[in-house]
Amino acid sequence: MIRFFAPDIENTLRLPEGESGHAIRVLRRRPGDEVEVVDGRGMLFRCRLVDDNHKGASITIVEREELPKVWTPSITVAVAPTKNMDRMEWLVEKLVEIGIDRFVPLKCERSERKELKVERIEKIAVSAMKQSLKAILPRIDATTPFKAFMAECAAMEAQRFVGYCDENTPRQLLARAYAPGNDVVLMIGPEGDFSPAEIQLAIASGFNAVTMGDNRLRTETAALVAADTIHIVNQLHS
Amino acid sequence: MIRFFAPDIENTLRLPEGESGHAIRVLRRRPGDEVEVVDGRGMLFRCRLVDDNHKGASITIVEREELPKVWTPSITVAVAPTKNMDRMEWLVEKLVEIGIDRFVPLKCERSERKELKVERIEKIAVSAMKQSLKAILPRIDATTPFKAFMAECAAMEAQRFVGYCDENTPRQLLARAYAPGNDVVLMIGPEGDFSPAEIQLAIASGFNAVTMGDNRLRTETAALVAADTIHIVNQLHS
Repeated sequence: MIRFFAPDIENTLRLPEGESGHAIRVLRRRPGDEVEVVDGRGMLFRCRLVDDNHKGASITIVEREELPKVWTPSITVAVAPTKNMDRMEWLVEKLVEIGIDRFVPLKCERSERKELKVERIEKIAVSAMKQSLKAILPRIDATTPFKAFMAECAAMEAQRFVGYCDENTPRQLLARAYAPGNDVVLMIGPEGDFSPAEIQLAIASGFNAVTMGDNRLRTETAALVAADTIHIVNQLHS
Repeated sequence: MIRFFAPDIENTLRLPEGESGHAIRVLRRRPGDEVEVVDGRGMLFRCRLVDDNHKGASITIVEREELPKVWTPSITVAVAPTKNMDRMEWLVEKLVEIGIDRFVPLKCERSERKELKVERIEKIAVSAMKQSLKAILPRIDATTPFKAFMAECAAMEAQRFVGYCDENTPRQLLARAYAPGNDVVLMIGPEGDFSPAEIQLAIASGFNAVTMGDNRLRTETAALVAADTIHIVNQLHS
């Protein structure tokens, strides 16, 4: 069954406009039909359509089910958006599929793209959440200046890792450096890498420099591989 | 330095047409300039341009260097092509970046795409090889019927895993089932999954049914995550 997204369904008892149009006009659901709705915060609602208003279809809730996330620690991925927007859209889709808790687009010194359209990114995240049968939408931040994110991270308890390409800087292997069960922040730089000043600030803010192995990876590949590494290390230790 | 691909450079001492055009017309390299050439079989050649023939630039080889792959066991990924061609192109790019040895497009019972244009896939693989600074191009098979691939696999020594979505079939977690250091064949089915008959044949051909975790993943995500799992398990045990 196709799922619909309505963050406030319990209060409104209506599907939002886009979702209503999809249900009524595209999928031709009619009053009395069952639909599944997720709220992005872990709840799945089995609902029944009350009318066929394609701008805001009314529903009644038949059943509530909690769908908790299938991984334990909190995973934050902060990444400098790539010049090519497709690569970012692809990354967000894949991160939501494999499962993360928060996505932070970072504005770095050498960023080729200074601003990421968060609306577009959210749309993709919602669609990936529905497609991968999840009920939790990761938090998606607005584009955040590197220094502001470092200020926030300095006080965190999560393990913090920054992917860094400079071979002269001592770096651990992420799969070995991450201690299973811990919340984690993974930070991946732009195509031209972090600047030395940024790396210094990251280390001062509790980040450890890591690599994901001996391959040179594109920004979006590195971000996905890093998040996947956390899942696999946790799987091996659960 | 941008790398060029010339599978037969040692014999021809010329860049192929497309690469010559790129070097001479786009990048405006001139006789006497240095260029780096990889042969896709692990050799990197530092060369000097002899002429500026944009249809087949002559070179002399200045230096040879072997660039072995950075992972040890052989990794084969066999996947039923998705309906959407972009998703396959993306997958091949990412697989080459993280490193695999062989890519087999599989024709399954429920495949939505029966044929994959191997030429296009090869182009993407070459570009990902160059971009990720590798000198080895994975072998890319023509679209292979499922049964033919099973016949080939039955005699293999590699560990063989098939991703399977049916929750009623006993499945191991890939990260746990894979024994580090072993050659491996990873098989991922189409959007509609393998048919029960295909799974039976796979198991008879030495495959173990696995999952990559509790998330529902798209075909191309499952294939990438599976290959990445092999790398991470090997990293942890090296």
